[in-house]
Amino acid sequence: MKIIKYPERHDWHEIVERPIVATEKVFSLVLPVIQEVKEQGDKALLRLTEEVDKVKLSSIEVSESEIAQSGNDVPLQLKQAIEMARRNIWKFHLAQMPNTVEVETSPEVFCTQKSIAIEKVGLYVPGGSAPSFSAVLMLAIPAQIAECKEIILCTPPDEQGKIHPAILYAAKISGVKRVFKIGGAQAIAAMAYGTESVPKVYKIFGQGNHLINAAKQLVYLQGTAIDLPSGFSGLEVLADKTAHPEFVAADLLAQCEQCADNQVILLTTDEDIITPVLEQIEMQIEKLPQKEIARKSLENSKIIVVKTIEQAVEFTNLYAPEHLIIATQYYKGVAEGIVNAGSAYLGNYSPISAGYYVSGTNHFLPADSLSKAYSGVNIDSFFRKLTFQHLTRAGLSNIANAAMLMAETEGFAARCNAVKVRIDEEIIKPEIERR
Amino acid sequence: MKIIKYPERHDWHEIVERPIVATEKVFSLVLPVIQEVKEQGDKALLRLTEEVDKVKLSSIEVSESEIAQSGNDVPLQLKQAIEMARRNIWKFHLAQMPNTVEVETSPEVFCTQKSIAIEKVGLYVPGGSAPSFSAVLMLAIPAQIAECKEIILCTPPDEQGKIHPAILYAAKISGVKRVFKIGGAQAIAAMAYGTESVPKVYKIFGQGNHLINAAKQLVYLQGTAIDLPSGFSGLEVLADKTAHPEFVAADLLAQCEQCADNQVILLTTDEDIITPVLEQIEMQIEKLPQKEIARKSLENSKIIVVKTIEQAVEFTNLYAPEHLIIATQYYKGVAEGIVNAGSAYLGNYSPISAGYYVSGTNHFLPADSLSKAYSGVNIDSFFRKLTFQHLTRAGLSNIANAAMLMAETEGFAARCNAVKVRIDEEIIKPEIERR
Repeated sequence: MKIIKYPERHDWHEIVERPIVATEKVFSLVLPVIQEVKEQGDKALLRLTEEVDKVKLSSIEVSESEIAQSGNDVPLQLKQAIEMARRNIWKFHLAQMPNTVEVETSPEVFCTQKSIAIEKVGLYVPGGSAPSFSAVLMLAIPAQIAECKEIILCTPPDEQGKIHPAILYAAKISGVKRVFKIGGAQAIAAMAYGTESVPKVYKIFGQGNHLINAAKQLVYLQGTAIDLPSGFSGLEVLADKTAHPEFVAADLLAQCEQCADNQVILLTTDEDIITPVLEQIEMQIEKLPQKEIARKSLENSKIIVVKTIEQAVEFTNLYAPEHLIIATQYYKGVAEGIVNAGSAYLGNYSPISAGYYVSGTNHFLPADSLSKAYSGVNIDSFFRKLTFQHLTRAGLSNIANAAMLMAETEGFAARCNAVKVRIDEEIIKPEIERR
Repeated sequence: MKIIKYPERHDWHEIVERPIVATEKVFSLVLPVIQEVKEQGDKALLRLTEEVDKVKLSSIEVSESEIAQSGNDVPLQLKQAIEMARRNIWKFHLAQMPNTVEVETSPEVFCTQKSIAIEKVGLYVPGGSAPSFSAVLMLAIPAQIAECKEIILCTPPDEQGKIHPAILYAAKISGVKRVFKIGGAQAIAAMAYGTESVPKVYKIFGQGNHLINAAKQLVYLQGTAIDLPSGFSGLEVLADKTAHPEFVAADLLAQCEQCADNQVILLTTDEDIITPVLEQIEMQIEKLPQKEIARKSLENSKIIVVKTIEQAVEFTNLYAPEHLIIATQYYKGVAEGIVNAGSAYLGNYSPISAGYYVSGTNHFLPADSLSKAYSGVNIDSFFRKLTFQHLTRAGLSNIANAAMLMAETEGFAARCNAVKVRIDEEIIKPEIERR
């Protein structure tokens, strides 16, 4: 890790620069896959699955009974853990449910904003030997709370054509009704355009490798909504002298083991913490199966020392970390100052792993510095807000002159006329029998 | 308008197809502009403004005094109309303000979701002889309510290098502090990357021609958030025998006059309404300055007759109109069934113009059929939802086993360890003095 002590304020912008994710560079790899799926549907999916996942599928869809019985192949303890996660994610996301807003803005001008669930959503989780069942929980549970009508899941099969039972079990208990054995850009294309087997959805959620992310961007450009733009994942630990070096090291490594491109930052007001943290990293990293990945990620990473907690907060808001651990004495006060971050963990006993799995917060968060403009996945991600307005004849009269003058000034005569014909109308018969 | 009577259910999918907006096709035109602004900043802006807007600017920014005095050049009646619009937009968007959500998901596991305004937002409105001051109100007022710290506006100057006073006045009363005389893709690039004069923002709002929309997509791909993807604007009027042909015709034309690519649809259960509506269209269109545009738009447009209101609702949800007028006897019941639409206008006295200007609803809405997945601009568009979690030592103990088992099963040893080091810790000294 690069150590930067007391950088000048004018150097901060350079320090917070991240490596650029050039998703567009793989567009040319992904476009033909999307095109093939669009044109050939299931046939393309079967061919690509054979080519990429090395398995010839008889059916693209997981059978209902396989989903129903998935619990039999998941150890009891893991099922209990998943149930605890499910309950907490459910509670936290349920509390976020949007309300209907009704306002009489002018007399007899009634405006309403209603939240309505997106009808069809598609979830993607990666495959591999380590099953991303937590991603299923994070995406499917809010979709279930929102009551999206169609919730489908795509995930690549193993070489036996199977999906890990923990993924199927997580899907089952989170209201996912249909699971498809498809991975890669082909899965994104299938959900965006639909095939004989896979229904077209309106919004796609989930993350994967750079091909998945590029495919999401490409279908976004053609009208399918996506949860979040992709980027490199990151963590900042903001520590003062009350932080525990052992915990800090463990948290930094927890974000490094996943991907060599991840960046972690230790931002501290306490120079003396650097050595014990680095020692702890060395001790802990040796025990990690993914230590090579973690080491590479640490090469992108930095330790930055600033003078005051106020500076640390300012720096943090400039950096806009995805995950932020606040390991300081007055963590609540520090948290009050944070405006740019995906998710923050307060105090010495709130490890990043709590949020990854069980606490109830969502782990799909804005990567890079995207938290400056984006929220992580939350209940809103599964809703749209529609507006309704109802004006009585009197209500329209109240705003008619203003609307007509504004329309006229903007050069829209027909918009003006749509008001005029109504207020000029002669009331002869009761409204309902008029024609 | 093409008339389609009682189409079979299996033909509906074809009927709701819209022309495709191929924004990508102009990417190659827009990319060099973005690149030039990125590399040369203000110099590029001045050069492009001279080339495109035919004016050599001495300063890119409108002076503070010009904004302050803009009210002098706006007629009193228009100021009063704008004030009514401002007040209603304010009321409706203020009522949408998000709440903080706090849940103790497991004992001593405290999760919070806080809404924090995006710090820097950039608004774009088109120029021309007809000033889009209503767009300024629609975007700046919610930004002001959200308390975004920096709210800037870009709009192209006229050939005298001036901005229409109505735009400046709308900006002034909506909390916009800085206005820049830049149009086109160069304005989008300036706000996305910043120049010597124009501050970089995190999210860009507003619509324009296809170059603007392409530029927004391109900067989105590089990390700047945007309000909504673009598309062709549209309106559906859902009418039964209680609808007024004169009003229906006026509403259809109100959406046709703006752009030849707009599509409008009259969906009705009453065949007898067709002739009087077409007659009214012919009468009214002749008086419109933009009648040529309106006629072209009508060529893309359709009248569809279905048997029942239930079918009409189902068809509407498949079509997902941007604007929807429900001119039926039981409009409230019909509105209950609508799930896919941007904004709905209920009854015979709720013209589309009310929502465009004064009622208080936002007129930046999901075009094409994007309302299936997107909301129109609303107060949320100016916020991000951050999550915070605080676990006590006991709180962590309560979820530790579940988190560790899930992390382990997903193959993340370091995530598991970040919990383990904390619960294995021996408590010798009080926490605060530990180091």
